[in-house]
Amino acid sequence: MERLHFLYYVLDLAGTFAFAISGATAARKRNLDLFGICALAFTVACGGGIIRDLCIGAIPPAGLTNWQYLAASLFASALTVHFFPLVQRLKRPVLFFDSVGLALFAVTGAEKALHFGHNGQVAVMLGITTAVGGGVIRDVLLNRVPVIMEKEIYASAALLGAVVVVVGNQLPWVTANWAAVTALLLCFTLRILALYFHWNLPTPGSRKTDQDSD
Amino acid sequence: MERLHFLYYVLDLAGTFAFAISGATAARKRNLDLFGICALAFTVACGGGIIRDLCIGAIPPAGLTNWQYLAASLFASALTVHFFPLVQRLKRPVLFFDSVGLALFAVTGAEKALHFGHNGQVAVMLGITTAVGGGVIRDVLLNRVPVIMEKEIYASAALLGAVVVVVGNQLPWVTANWAAVTALLLCFTLRILALYFHWNLPTPGSRKTDQDSD
Amino acid sequence: MERLHFLYYVLDLAGTFAFAISGATAARKRNLDLFGICALAFTVACGGGIIRDLCIGAIPPAGLTNWQYLAASLFASALTVHFFPLVQRLKRPVLFFDSVGLALFAVTGAEKALHFGHNGQVAVMLGITTAVGGGVIRDVLLNRVPVIMEKEIYASAALLGAVVVVVGNQLPWVTANWAAVTALLLCFTLRILALYFHWNLPTPGSRKTDQDSD
Repeated sequence: MERLHFLYYVLDLAGTFAFAISGATAARKRNLDLFGICALAFTVACGGGIIRDLCIGAIPPAGLTNWQYLAASLFASALTVHFFPLVQRLKRPVLFFDSVGLALFAVTGAEKALHFGHNGQVAVMLGITTAVGGGVIRDVLLNRVPVIMEKEIYASAALLGAVVVVVGNQLPWVTANWAAVTALLLCFTLRILALYFHWNLPTPGSRKTDQDSD
Repeated sequence: MERLHFLYYVLDLAGTFAFAISGATAARKRNLDLFGICALAFTVACGGGIIRDLCIGAIPPAGLTNWQYLAASLFASALTVHFFPLVQRLKRPVLFFDSVGLALFAVTGAEKALHFGHNGQVAVMLGITTAVGGGVIRDVLLNRVPVIMEKEIYASAALLGAVVVVVGNQLPWVTANWAAVTALLLCFTLRILALYFHWNLPTPGSRKTDQDSD
Repeated sequence: MERLHFLYYVLDLAGTFAFAISGATAARKRNLDLFGICALAFTVACGGGIIRDLCIGAIPPAGLTNWQYLAASLFASALTVHFFPLVQRLKRPVLFFDSVGLALFAVTGAEKALHFGHNGQVAVMLGITTAVGGGVIRDVLLNRVPVIMEKEIYASAALLGAVVVVVGNQLPWVTANWAAVTALLLCFTLRILALYFHWNLPTPGSRKTDQDSD
């Protein structure tokens, strides 16, 4: 139990940091000012978790009350601003950090919803929300259609991770630790493979209307 | 009481289905992928209700916890994807389904707020929120100014429906069932008439600045 | 205590009115209809506060339950619509009202979070949220990147105000009234000076990519 709690805590912080990097990078690319960069880093990192906490009744949301999340976001912002040329030269750093955060948040989001006594469906829905919520808010604030709705398998990977957590928690012979680790690896691997091989979900609209996308 | 509860339940599901069709259609038109279509269908269908539930303290929100809402959204998505050419040939199907959902959600939203013991103003505000919230989120996600703020009488119809529910619940000689049905018919009729006759609320800005809309 | 409560109440209403003017003006400029103007006025005025109330567990949010907020928003909308030529001729009226509301909301938002027993970080974060939340929602609804992330010192002024409230409340020799008034004046002055002298936060991205802002 002690160890699970610690694993949960470390994963959550690592995911926060990963998403904050992704948010700060997007903000830096759009020439937002220093506050905008920090705010977007924090929003991407904690936005999904805050929505999750509101939905499960964890008041006040952990993202607001724990200084670690804020500190991780500010640290990620500082790194991004300072080493931006480096960050930009690395191949697809935003996408990589995004994938790490995606897997971590889908798992910890589903775990927390179960921990608060909600049913499997709530855990799956909020696992996905925790994982993709911050990115959706980022895209809405940067005034573009959320990338998760158009690009390579993304939220579907979060769905897989959350489902594995929920199923694993209902099988008597699987410990919660193993369920979490398995879910994490599956989600991250699926996402990275999708990026590498350009796996996409079917896009029903593109069969006929590929040319005239409005 | 039993019957009211059943009416409430059926109306809610029908509204969910109607809004999900509208969300899936909008997503399909923008060439989102399969997940995007399902996600937008669910968001339009349940987004307003989730905001309402957060505001009245119904934790976790019904949209997340009841499988029926999710099932209705996924079913509507499947229908929309499969029969899209048909859906598109029907005249203004999105607008029609939107009107059905609008009336249903304004009424059930106001009912639920009253049921949770909140005052008439909260019920009216959250009736409108339930009715138009999903559509506003849809438009924000699809990166356009919410259509409800520019087009034919829409939120005003939801306002009418919610007010009739609240007033009806305070008159001793009106049963809640009758108030709900009356509100439903009034809201739906007003919306359909507004669509047909192009009734608009006055637009103060258009008198002088019609040409230079920024 | 009585007096503090009254001060808190008056400040809150004045802030609501100021933000509603700003929301109604933005909506009027975009040629939204009468409902759109009232809705945007209310959203800018109460949106930040509603998010704050959801996060601190003040259910239902004060913005929905107190008729004064709604009345102030509708009154501000009516004034804006009726006297729009006048409002437009005044120099930067939106910016001025925005600054008043900013200072008032940063202070009352932080006060309310402390009053509900949350820690200083929550109070600072929610003071900022109360102050800038409505404006962010306005910009998202009007389909543009939130102005607070690009322009003159804005959210930073709210940060200053909220921090002064929190620090003032922890110093034994400072009354809450004095902390609030000091925070209010500091925040407002910083914002107005920033507007006048075009003070900006550093924009890390603008050093090299000034020309090609995407």
